[in-house]
Amino acid sequence: MTPVTIGEVIKHLLDGAALVEGGVDGVVAGPGSGWGEADANTDTDAARAGTFNASTAVTGVAVVFTATQALLEQAAALGVNLVISHEGLFYCHREAGAAWLPDDPVVRAKRELLGRTGMTVVRYHDRPHRCQPDAITAGLIEALAWAPHLLAHEPAAAVVEIEPMTLAQVARHVKAKLGIPYVRAAGNPDMLCRRIGVAAGYRGGAGVAVPLIQAHGLDLVIAGEGPEWETPEYVRDAAREGRPLAYLALGHAESEEPGMRAIAAWLRERFPGVPVHALREAPLFRVL
Amino acid sequence: MTPVTIGEVIKHLLDGAALVEGGVDGVVAGPGSGWGEADANTDTDAARAGTFNASTAVTGVAVVFTATQALLEQAAALGVNLVISHEGLFYCHREAGAAWLPDDPVVRAKRELLGRTGMTVVRYHDRPHRCQPDAITAGLIEALAWAPHLLAHEPAAAVVEIEPMTLAQVARHVKAKLGIPYVRAAGNPDMLCRRIGVAAGYRGGAGVAVPLIQAHGLDLVIAGEGPEWETPEYVRDAAREGRPLAYLALGHAESEEPGMRAIAAWLRERFPGVPVHALREAPLFRVL
Repeated sequence: MTPVTIGEVIKHLLDGAALVEGGVDGVVAGPGSGWGEADANTDTDAARAGTFNASTAVTGVAVVFTATQALLEQAAALGVNLVISHEGLFYCHREAGAAWLPDDPVVRAKRELLGRTGMTVVRYHDRPHRCQPDAITAGLIEALAWAPHLLAHEPAAAVVEIEPMTLAQVARHVKAKLGIPYVRAAGNPDMLCRRIGVAAGYRGGAGVAVPLIQAHGLDLVIAGEGPEWETPEYVRDAAREGRPLAYLALGHAESEEPGMRAIAAWLRERFPGVPVHALREAPLFRVL
Repeated sequence: MTPVTIGEVIKHLLDGAALVEGGVDGVVAGPGSGWGEADANTDTDAARAGTFNASTAVTGVAVVFTATQALLEQAAALGVNLVISHEGLFYCHREAGAAWLPDDPVVRAKRELLGRTGMTVVRYHDRPHRCQPDAITAGLIEALAWAPHLLAHEPAAAVVEIEPMTLAQVARHVKAKLGIPYVRAAGNPDMLCRRIGVAAGYRGGAGVAVPLIQAHGLDLVIAGEGPEWETPEYVRDAAREGRPLAYLALGHAESEEPGMRAIAAWLRERFPGVPVHALREAPLFRVL
């Protein structure tokens, strides 16, 4: 059997589509990238044009929410040479880490690991979010077992209508389905929730959530992350004014990992001969 | 005794300084503002120019992190006619709520309360943050009983050096001193912490935290809020690479309320005849 190449997997991921103008998707580390001093000013576009060898046979794929040091090490130990990461390598949305932290020891150690292993790392963020429906949101809805209850897929969120559950029951359901230890809730735990907006990632802000609440008569918004002074405070004021409303923060990673697992499953289906690992980090925060 | 006027209190708050260009501080609601349809497009500057009666005698002052519906009701019940709020009335940083949510029922009810009570609301955000040192950060350091351990006041954070404590012990100390039920921690709870960066508000991002870590050899950053994929992921990678480092998220309100309480104390000292209430909301989130 002819081996699958890195170029073929990337082509499948991008589905022939051009990269989004001003977006972050693309090869952000590769064996030819060197990560030498000459790359210290690598900006987003240069990173997107990062060298990689399209004809290299894929030995294994790791799909992750964030390519952390630990997950890159785990991927290398599994014989992976292609990593698909939703978030960036260097602690900012735009892949400019090599430029904005040129002398940072944490960045340097990660670059050394990348250089040593020669793994190709693809940032895969905008493309799955801009699918119809958003593949990350759809993966979250699937993981929550709410696909049969779907009312609408909006560009930045999905809306479901479930049999009424209290907010506390929704929290238990969400934790069990996603395998996460806790969620943070604004609102009365005894409040009944029926219509729920689900916004993966950093889409918990009022700019997304409030119009969604208005358009769909929502009882609850579930988001990954968002500014604390926006939707949670809106929800608090609404409840005080006699309009029961609630907000659940899952955590950014917790809200997007299911979508990345769905992408791993999709790659497995398309490339059955290639080992595809969906690698997951421990929860980022513990509650103390 | 001549009564203290609203104008005098505002003048004292601003200390004669001009409002910051492009900033958010100023009168954002007042008896003359009307909140009628003509104000629906009120933008930041118009809000800052919002009418109020400077010569009205102050019947009471409420100082809050966010002027929520519940705290405005409480202030009115206490006979307050001047509210000093760090964050905005309408769920966004810039006081454009009346414009960006013109037909929103939650906004409408809050505007009705403001109109009914005729309270003057002053947004007080940029000015305390731009004091030397930042009054909000200094209030947090004071509340944490770390003023004697202060090493430096940077523009966006303070640095303290304490007798070494584990991260878990620091978390217990912080919760006890601030009276908050939990914190979220990234890092090993057994890790010893000695040099700590303290960043109030939404300053937990890598752009503030990483240079601070580098400049001061920090073990721990304590912040109000920040993007989850930035500093916490940096800290996780650092620990994996053998550089113990930790991050504590207090919550945005939890990190800035002590600074606002300090401002209330400062007003009480200056205007001993005026009742000044530091009003505090219940925690925004509960962990479920």
